[in-house]
Amino acid sequence: MNFDLSAACATIPAADPSAAEAARTRHAGLAKPAGSLGVIEEIGIRLSGSGAQCPPRVPLQPTLLVAAGDHGVHVEAVSPWPQAITAIMAGVIADGRAASSVMAAGLGVDVIVLDVGCATPVTGHPSLRDVRVVDGTRNLRVEDAMTAEEALRCIEVGHDAAVDAIDAGADCILLGDMGIANTTVSSCLVAVMTGADAAAVVGRGTGIDDATLAAKTKVIEDALARLGGARDPLGVLAGVGGAEHACLVGVILAAAGRRIPVILDGVITNAAALVAVALAPAVVDHCIAGHRSVEPAASLAIEHLGLVPLVDLDLRLGEGTGALLALPMVQAAARVLTNMASLADLGFG
Amino acid sequence: MNFDLSAACATIPAADPSAAEAARTRHAGLAKPAGSLGVIEEIGIRLSGSGAQCPPRVPLQPTLLVAAGDHGVHVEAVSPWPQAITAIMAGVIADGRAASSVMAAGLGVDVIVLDVGCATPVTGHPSLRDVRVVDGTRNLRVEDAMTAEEALRCIEVGHDAAVDAIDAGADCILLGDMGIANTTVSSCLVAVMTGADAAAVVGRGTGIDDATLAAKTKVIEDALARLGGARDPLGVLAGVGGAEHACLVGVILAAAGRRIPVILDGVITNAAALVAVALAPAVVDHCIAGHRSVEPAASLAIEHLGLVPLVDLDLRLGEGTGALLALPMVQAAARVLTNMASLADLGFG
Repeated sequence: MNFDLSAACATIPAADPSAAEAARTRHAGLAKPAGSLGVIEEIGIRLSGSGAQCPPRVPLQPTLLVAAGDHGVHVEAVSPWPQAITAIMAGVIADGRAASSVMAAGLGVDVIVLDVGCATPVTGHPSLRDVRVVDGTRNLRVEDAMTAEEALRCIEVGHDAAVDAIDAGADCILLGDMGIANTTVSSCLVAVMTGADAAAVVGRGTGIDDATLAAKTKVIEDALARLGGARDPLGVLAGVGGAEHACLVGVILAAAGRRIPVILDGVITNAAALVAVALAPAVVDHCIAGHRSVEPAASLAIEHLGLVPLVDLDLRLGEGTGALLALPMVQAAARVLTNMASLADLGFG
Repeated sequence: MNFDLSAACATIPAADPSAAEAARTRHAGLAKPAGSLGVIEEIGIRLSGSGAQCPPRVPLQPTLLVAAGDHGVHVEAVSPWPQAITAIMAGVIADGRAASSVMAAGLGVDVIVLDVGCATPVTGHPSLRDVRVVDGTRNLRVEDAMTAEEALRCIEVGHDAAVDAIDAGADCILLGDMGIANTTVSSCLVAVMTGADAAAVVGRGTGIDDATLAAKTKVIEDALARLGGARDPLGVLAGVGGAEHACLVGVILAAAGRRIPVILDGVITNAAALVAVALAPAVVDHCIAGHRSVEPAASLAIEHLGLVPLVDLDLRLGEGTGALLALPMVQAAARVLTNMASLADLGFG
């Protein structure tokens, strides 16, 4: 195993307090009432701290990384969708015809789809990258979803993909996911990382009925009981995580380590962020909550991370759609700090 | 008086029900779980109804119209800001250095600032248009803010400006305002149009203390008492409105009459929308609530209009900032309906 997770975590810097403070001071002197841009001002301060510069860099080359994987827990009938949809939709995203890719094209965002663990390889889509670690995970209800080595390898391929994107010029990383049954997996991860119980984290995913919801709750309860006592974050990821979750953990670690802001999407990415922050607490200083999914676990995770979601519009699609809707607000937050007139410019103060 | 308000109102079409229904059907057949884009799907359906076509036009040439005016009620000390700020900031917006113009530049949005009623003419800014009707309004606490003729003339200049912008290619109109003390005016308008009392509509504007808030409440109470019984919408606008509010009413009527979607900003534009809808109920079918201002009157107005705000981030600046933050979501809503793969394309359904 070449990837040194401890080393990757150890080098992640926290927000630069002087840059954040400079942004706060700068906001107070801009040609507008103090605080009148609300959360947008906080995002600008966050960007300054993350990037250690004020004004912050305006992210003009954002990249959306979509991690795709399948889940052994699908056999428990936690989703109304056939597992084959994962690979099909990963291809549709890569081909530019999914919701996220259509939004990304409109915003000039590069999209990279990573097949990290689909049940069968996704082929025939030139822009999709084969970084396969597993052929889907095992059923987390009855056994660990992955070995620790598999989970670590998923982190590594995500880390490598993000480093490549950043080396190619990406100045903001958006997270996305594709994986039938992955809200069940995310719920397990959020439960473990926040201490919530199954009933608090379970939701209807992309659309299930009451009977399926009850079954899904039982699956999560069983998985949590099986997992038992404390494990380290990598152990949790292997026990009840998914290949795409682990991949996104790697993406987050790489971006945070390079002071590149990360815009989270829905509950899958929120769960990955919880694991990344457990591995390296400074990670959170580089994270922005793009939106609040309707999944209950998403709200729990975002609150646990101490973030404020920018978009809250009843989305439950994933793929990065919530992160993409938030991106222009993040860009606006940076532009305001960078380009606005100050009160001093106007002869005041 | 050349402008025929009744004629302008009479020709405003409602949403096309068949186009809206076609959008609803199209959404159900796209490559995503039904309803999984939440409010974004509703916006796409709304755009289709407004424009009477499905898929809807993707708004690629949006224009922000910022109406600026001063208010006689400023003498009642309802704002901590000197009245001269209105003209100064109108100039800063026109020069591209205010929060709204910085955001607009990043999004490729044209900005047109209309001096419809500043206390003194705003000069020296080539891109600012002199459409002055009044030199500020009168104190609405003690007398009508404008004559009906003045209010009608303000509507006309707003209508003309919007028609010009649309004739020049604008395919989406964003509303903005600048006017020290204009949250007081907006609160009066919202109170009259929704039947709420002064305590329910008053807020802290861009920043006032408790004593000023109490004084502001009393001013609104006095204005509402003075206004007395029922007036028609034009009479309300003249009695307790502002030049920029009336101008924005004209903008809204012109856009709605041409099936061009209008993205509302904060409470000033919400108040103008209430008046426009009172004049011509079909107007609301072309309105999108860009954001929810922290002003209590904004929430009342948006609820009265039956709209769902896209952005809810504690903004209280105005200038069109909330509308601009919402614009990319509106564009995304149109793109999803226009460019996404359908389930049939993928061999399903």
